[in-house]
Amino acid sequence: MRKPWEGRFKEKTQEFVEKFTQSVSFDKRLALEDITQSLAHIKTLYEAGILTQEEMLTLQNVLEDIKREIQEGRFVFSEELEDVHMNIEAELIRRSGEVGGKLHTGRSRNDQIATDEKLYIKKEIKECIMLLKDLRKKLVKLAENSVDVIMPAYTHLQRAQPIRLSHYFLAYREMFLGDELRFCYAYRMTDFLPLGSGAVAGVDFPLNRFFTAKELNFRALVRNSLQATSDRDYVLDTLYACAVVGMHLSRLSEDLILWSTQEFGFVELPDRLCTGSSIMPQKKNPDVLELIRGKTGRLYGNLLSLLTSLKGLPTAYNRDLQEDKEPLFDSIDTVKACIEAMNLVLDGLSLRVENMTPPFGDPIIATDLANYLVMKGLPFREAHRVVGNLIAYLLSENRSLGDIKLEELRDFSPLFDEDALSLLDPKVVADRRRTYGGTAKEEVLRQIEVAKREEGM
Amino acid sequence: MRKPWEGRFKEKTQEFVEKFTQSVSFDKRLALEDITQSLAHIKTLYEAGILTQEEMLTLQNVLEDIKREIQEGRFVFSEELEDVHMNIEAELIRRSGEVGGKLHTGRSRNDQIATDEKLYIKKEIKECIMLLKDLRKKLVKLAENSVDVIMPAYTHLQRAQPIRLSHYFLAYREMFLGDELRFCYAYRMTDFLPLGSGAVAGVDFPLNRFFTAKELNFRALVRNSLQATSDRDYVLDTLYACAVVGMHLSRLSEDLILWSTQEFGFVELPDRLCTGSSIMPQKKNPDVLELIRGKTGRLYGNLLSLLTSLKGLPTAYNRDLQEDKEPLFDSIDTVKACIEAMNLVLDGLSLRVENMTPPFGDPIIATDLANYLVMKGLPFREAHRVVGNLIAYLLSENRSLGDIKLEELRDFSPLFDEDALSLLDPKVVADRRRTYGGTAKEEVLRQIEVAKREEGM
Amino acid sequence: MRKPWEGRFKEKTQEFVEKFTQSVSFDKRLALEDITQSLAHIKTLYEAGILTQEEMLTLQNVLEDIKREIQEGRFVFSEELEDVHMNIEAELIRRSGEVGGKLHTGRSRNDQIATDEKLYIKKEIKECIMLLKDLRKKLVKLAENSVDVIMPAYTHLQRAQPIRLSHYFLAYREMFLGDELRFCYAYRMTDFLPLGSGAVAGVDFPLNRFFTAKELNFRALVRNSLQATSDRDYVLDTLYACAVVGMHLSRLSEDLILWSTQEFGFVELPDRLCTGSSIMPQKKNPDVLELIRGKTGRLYGNLLSLLTSLKGLPTAYNRDLQEDKEPLFDSIDTVKACIEAMNLVLDGLSLRVENMTPPFGDPIIATDLANYLVMKGLPFREAHRVVGNLIAYLLSENRSLGDIKLEELRDFSPLFDEDALSLLDPKVVADRRRTYGGTAKEEVLRQIEVAKREEGM
Amino acid sequence: MRKPWEGRFKEKTQEFVEKFTQSVSFDKRLALEDITQSLAHIKTLYEAGILTQEEMLTLQNVLEDIKREIQEGRFVFSEELEDVHMNIEAELIRRSGEVGGKLHTGRSRNDQIATDEKLYIKKEIKECIMLLKDLRKKLVKLAENSVDVIMPAYTHLQRAQPIRLSHYFLAYREMFLGDELRFCYAYRMTDFLPLGSGAVAGVDFPLNRFFTAKELNFRALVRNSLQATSDRDYVLDTLYACAVVGMHLSRLSEDLILWSTQEFGFVELPDRLCTGSSIMPQKKNPDVLELIRGKTGRLYGNLLSLLTSLKGLPTAYNRDLQEDKEPLFDSIDTVKACIEAMNLVLDGLSLRVENMTPPFGDPIIATDLANYLVMKGLPFREAHRVVGNLIAYLLSENRSLGDIKLEELRDFSPLFDEDALSLLDPKVVADRRRTYGGTAKEEVLRQIEVAKREEGM
Repeated sequence: MRKPWEGRFKEKTQEFVEKFTQSVSFDKRLALEDITQSLAHIKTLYEAGILTQEEMLTLQNVLEDIKREIQEGRFVFSEELEDVHMNIEAELIRRSGEVGGKLHTGRSRNDQIATDEKLYIKKEIKECIMLLKDLRKKLVKLAENSVDVIMPAYTHLQRAQPIRLSHYFLAYREMFLGDELRFCYAYRMTDFLPLGSGAVAGVDFPLNRFFTAKELNFRALVRNSLQATSDRDYVLDTLYACAVVGMHLSRLSEDLILWSTQEFGFVELPDRLCTGSSIMPQKKNPDVLELIRGKTGRLYGNLLSLLTSLKGLPTAYNRDLQEDKEPLFDSIDTVKACIEAMNLVLDGLSLRVENMTPPFGDPIIATDLANYLVMKGLPFREAHRVVGNLIAYLLSENRSLGDIKLEELRDFSPLFDEDALSLLDPKVVADRRRTYGGTAKEEVLRQIEVAKREEGM
Repeated sequence: MRKPWEGRFKEKTQEFVEKFTQSVSFDKRLALEDITQSLAHIKTLYEAGILTQEEMLTLQNVLEDIKREIQEGRFVFSEELEDVHMNIEAELIRRSGEVGGKLHTGRSRNDQIATDEKLYIKKEIKECIMLLKDLRKKLVKLAENSVDVIMPAYTHLQRAQPIRLSHYFLAYREMFLGDELRFCYAYRMTDFLPLGSGAVAGVDFPLNRFFTAKELNFRALVRNSLQATSDRDYVLDTLYACAVVGMHLSRLSEDLILWSTQEFGFVELPDRLCTGSSIMPQKKNPDVLELIRGKTGRLYGNLLSLLTSLKGLPTAYNRDLQEDKEPLFDSIDTVKACIEAMNLVLDGLSLRVENMTPPFGDPIIATDLANYLVMKGLPFREAHRVVGNLIAYLLSENRSLGDIKLEELRDFSPLFDEDALSLLDPKVVADRRRTYGGTAKEEVLRQIEVAKREEGM
Repeated sequence: MRKPWEGRFKEKTQEFVEKFTQSVSFDKRLALEDITQSLAHIKTLYEAGILTQEEMLTLQNVLEDIKREIQEGRFVFSEELEDVHMNIEAELIRRSGEVGGKLHTGRSRNDQIATDEKLYIKKEIKECIMLLKDLRKKLVKLAENSVDVIMPAYTHLQRAQPIRLSHYFLAYREMFLGDELRFCYAYRMTDFLPLGSGAVAGVDFPLNRFFTAKELNFRALVRNSLQATSDRDYVLDTLYACAVVGMHLSRLSEDLILWSTQEFGFVELPDRLCTGSSIMPQKKNPDVLELIRGKTGRLYGNLLSLLTSLKGLPTAYNRDLQEDKEPLFDSIDTVKACIEAMNLVLDGLSLRVENMTPPFGDPIIATDLANYLVMKGLPFREAHRVVGNLIAYLLSENRSLGDIKLEELRDFSPLFDEDALSLLDPKVVADRRRTYGGTAKEEVLRQIEVAKREEGM
Repeated sequence: MRKPWEGRFKEKTQEFVEKFTQSVSFDKRLALEDITQSLAHIKTLYEAGILTQEEMLTLQNVLEDIKREIQEGRFVFSEELEDVHMNIEAELIRRSGEVGGKLHTGRSRNDQIATDEKLYIKKEIKECIMLLKDLRKKLVKLAENSVDVIMPAYTHLQRAQPIRLSHYFLAYREMFLGDELRFCYAYRMTDFLPLGSGAVAGVDFPLNRFFTAKELNFRALVRNSLQATSDRDYVLDTLYACAVVGMHLSRLSEDLILWSTQEFGFVELPDRLCTGSSIMPQKKNPDVLELIRGKTGRLYGNLLSLLTSLKGLPTAYNRDLQEDKEPLFDSIDTVKACIEAMNLVLDGLSLRVENMTPPFGDPIIATDLANYLVMKGLPFREAHRVVGNLIAYLLSENRSLGDIKLEELRDFSPLFDEDALSLLDPKVVADRRRTYGGTAKEEVLRQIEVAKREEGM
């Protein structure tokens, strides 16, 4: 097959080189975006008087035909034709004759690929944002249903203070809200049209780039033609947003894997979401959560991959930039699948409240004993020490706080009174944290209301 | 020295553990932020009726003294006291007695460190943004001074099309504008106050977090106490912004290193910015640019470092989070130094216009010969082939386009006329790229005007 | 289809979960290794008296059939059956009936997959080593053919000292020799058989693992069953070796891309290895080299991806480990393709010696003027300064060293004599570096002889 | 202060550039290595007839003086003098006069720094290997003391099969043995002397590099002078070895953090190794383990940092290479501290055997019930299903396997006999895994014997 650039070449491209440099095996995923773009470019060429109306119509019709074949999986891509652009253009020329050769007027593959990629990213980011919204709604729903479940909050994976389970779910909602902002930011950085920048220096046909931007629904234009063809920052921003989502999901997965252990026993996953062992008949494994956690690796790897390729690259288009696409596709696919998977997990989660709730007198309430003394006038540092000594004493006696008598408390500080004993109840203690963002019931209910309003629930 | 938490402990902390877990050797950089925060916390405690006015004044005075000593470098930090918070608090207690022990009421180191760090990041991001602005102004200035310098734009590091040097500088201005947006985004994600979230579950003293936020100049509150103490996303966002700045600087450095070679000879750096060889007397090396390029490594490494530490971490505070600070400090320091260094380089750059400008008839104008034919009605693909054949012919004859006669052109296409010969002048060709963002003089001048207005020049 | 582990499950696996957790879409690449392993396992079961001879023969025959179908591309893998193991086993059971169900006796997928993967890695590392050897041979050949080509060695991309081009090629040979060692090390770490370790705790059938190791040609056994199923270090070692190869190739590519620029003009690539521009008819781009350089990104990304997945993972098998395979396959494929691509480039390289060789009196010889003075008794630091001043003088006068007169030299130091002028010839200077590893002709010839012997040329 | 290379320069180095390019603030850690190297270089110069005996003695004496001052912390380094080499050389010249200027004869900072760094790495790797050996010995000791402790092995963090705790410790011993090999490999790659390669092209004084190698105790010479000054692979190999150690430590830490939770309760750490909370009096946190886990981030980050800096770097020395040192120092320091910290943890670990050992009838023994049926002739796949059904039945009845009657077992398969009931004891089951590497007592004892012999215990 003839290369579109072969005029100056004396030798045919070596077969291995064709295979090594081709991108169509992966950039064919951009085929529909490529056609969308070409349709807009055709109109722009017509507006500029470069195509006649008849030529425009011919090109449009043939492209629509090709589009349909692609959608129906009937279009055959060839590696010999390098990339998605050349595959489609070659077919266009084959079908439309000479006029097909006019499509590439005032356009280079350098601005073309950036435009395809941006169309793709804009579409995919919207989907990611929708999926994140679903996930947040589920978290809010779970929060709403678990307001009365008291559980231990952990720091350092040691029991720290009692919280409402709702509070936990709301924390993750905040993280995934941040992720939406990260995607919005990436979207905003993507939403500048490169088309009309040519190979590097701009275009010498009188193309109206603002017209094209409107056609393709871009907020603005890339303002410098070198930058337009040299830039992959919007891909980085997208890969970064995906990586942070992955990190959040890995933390949530880690928690849920722990909570699913026999030792914690806080939650149980339904059989339909688990897999078994090829050898151990009793096993029921939270594979979905483990895979979500494990896939953080590829999300980080993809980000790093492109960062590496870009490091020290001379300005403007270099073929190294072709290496941006596979990480991009993989990160988008991965992050979408992982969010969906987490959505299923949250749907299927059975809570084992009986295992979650700390008993009366659990040392988890110790902070409040100290704060009790503070309210009686003891400086916090002193109060902390008093309660620390109390805990140490109980540990050495192998006794539980739940059985303690007021007199014993008084041995540690005479400031303790009858009302201190009510603090041994984790639920009471949770409800004392009434500051904005705290875990008291009224505050959590308020947070849920806000969340529902924000999520349109 | 006594630990503030030793009440429950039977053994002294092992010396190695003290050394291994201490953070004061690096988090002392947050000492002033820590005091700023404590001063706001004291007011909040007073507003909540937890401190008397007298207590407030005492604590304020002592903290102001300590602040002064820190600013003057007279304050001695001790690793035994773990971190910056405990160092300051211990000194406060030593000087103020019992009342000092009240400072930590309703506060945990978990919300405290996040607040310190955010105060630091907000300050530093502002400085980075200022430095980026300086850098952009220099680029605009350079653009303004080089509107009439024609140079080759490269793609694949092969000469592609003639551009104005201004156009090159403006492209980098766009990148560094994107970086400002990245920093603004990181700033926005940082600008939520964690203080008042306690260790994990919120606070059981009636603290008015909105009051504290106003005191500390935060736009809003972190809305969930678990999230407040678990979250390091704002550090990631900052590290990411730094990494992308580093990537851009590495590309600019790469270009300038190439341009400084004897082979390109496009620019020369002044002696004051270069260093020599310990052994080769003729050497003058662009070390500054090489170091900027090389330091991309640590900016990427720091981002990855924190991403790794966060992967799979259980929710809420874990000591792993302490590992966020050194990468943060290093990335901020590095990015600031690198921007400053690049500022110096741009200041010192001597252009060697004579080496830059492509001669009459340089093959770099080939696209325009093809486009000429397009305007005469040839489909672009055909026109490309015609000119490709012409180039191949000249190469095989070892001749330059500059010497070609019209008749010879006509041998390749009868559409060539006298006016085609004017396209052999790179300057003429550059001026044909008049589309928005292109390199034509009028368009570049327009871009410069916009840039000056945006930068307030 | 029935899952092999469904006995304990009440619900069917959700379809999304099947798709999300399946690995057969990529681990089917291990199908032949899986059969090789199963054939050895069958023999081991027979030796242990668990299979009768007849059963063994049946299983062997069916597996050989399946193997043939796989080799011929006729075997259909199903995602419902999770992974390559279950696909093959299910088909085996379907064809052989009850006896097929005996294959998995004393084996778990945990030791099975590690064994498949190791068989694959061992095979692929051998191929990588062969390709590296080809590459080194080409470099030695190039070195042999360019002993008399003098070129500038660069440091900081500034001309430093004259060397023989051979010397340059031999430097890369050393790097690729180090890469072979890295692969050998990875091979050695891979060459321990996991099979016979069961799911995690070992096997309770009397399997002779040494027998299996011999059958499968493993040097030794993994000595601990937890480690056998928990470990992916050998994958890391392989990914690391690939990453370093990629780094070396990126450096060589960078050099050759520079050398192919019009400005350097040191080499030219044949048309068959280059591609053109869709828009600029004169372009001939070194895409192959750019892609090799760019692919370093994915090699680093893959390494990082697995490092991330492994970070903080609990001991023994977790599903996260499934994420090791795609990076592994991708790195192996990439590194093999890149070495092959570089082999082609080296084959096709045309040298432009006329552009490479520094002229008489090039400042690149300055070190030797200084060393001349040292041999006359001047301390090196003094000599360096004298020649530095000389260079500065020539620069300010815009004169070349090549035109200097002896009297002028004497103005800078009276130690200069007639014989100093011979040092103005870069070839003479190159030949003065006679120390072991230096660039003098006799030394380079010696190095080439050694290299040829080592490579068996 | 005068620069050693200022001869050719007209301007003083700008202060910011001095600060930006200096490396002495961190490479002063190589001061002793630098002197060791210079002492060897002096002898080599003397052997080559370049120094007289008297000159040699003078230089040696002054260097020994400087060495002592460095060791005693009395030597003052100055950033103006760029790096450790120039600091020491300047002082040498100041004290010894003209003869000091002869030290740098036949040496460049390019081969000098590589040699310093290699001396440092060789020393540090030896220390890392010693620390790893200590760690392994502790693991073997722990294994020896816990042969009779039965615990659940986990896969997917779900209880899988009973093992001896010894078996767990021995698994980590294997990993840390692999790490020793990784360090040995890095050592081997480091153990080639660069000195005598000059700036890039070799040396034109008749230096005997073999003599120098012997003096400095290097196994061999770098065989190519470009490679000698261009190469940082040995640093990468070291950083990689450190990263993998970190990964292993992060996994062990993760396990121990889990085991220290109230929910698992398998182990307890002594107070001396834990820290408390500034606010929660009951807290005792495994900070040491969390920090070890968190520090994996910086070990990965350092590796990536240098990989990035090296990507696409032109051959031979570029100033980017200076960026190798801080990651190297940090990784070495980190890995040493983390191994030591883990050593302390292992020393202090209290086992809570009562919480570890699975009870009679724990479903963890299910595999053996299936295997029992296999030995009675049932194909494994059938047996697996039978026992899976049994488990499902018990779960639905909320009953424990421990209470099951033989008749009930027979309802699931008539192949069950009296002797099947003994398999309900996890200890019995553990002892059935007698294959090489399995967890049966006799096999574990054998492994311990081997380990002790290998570790010289």
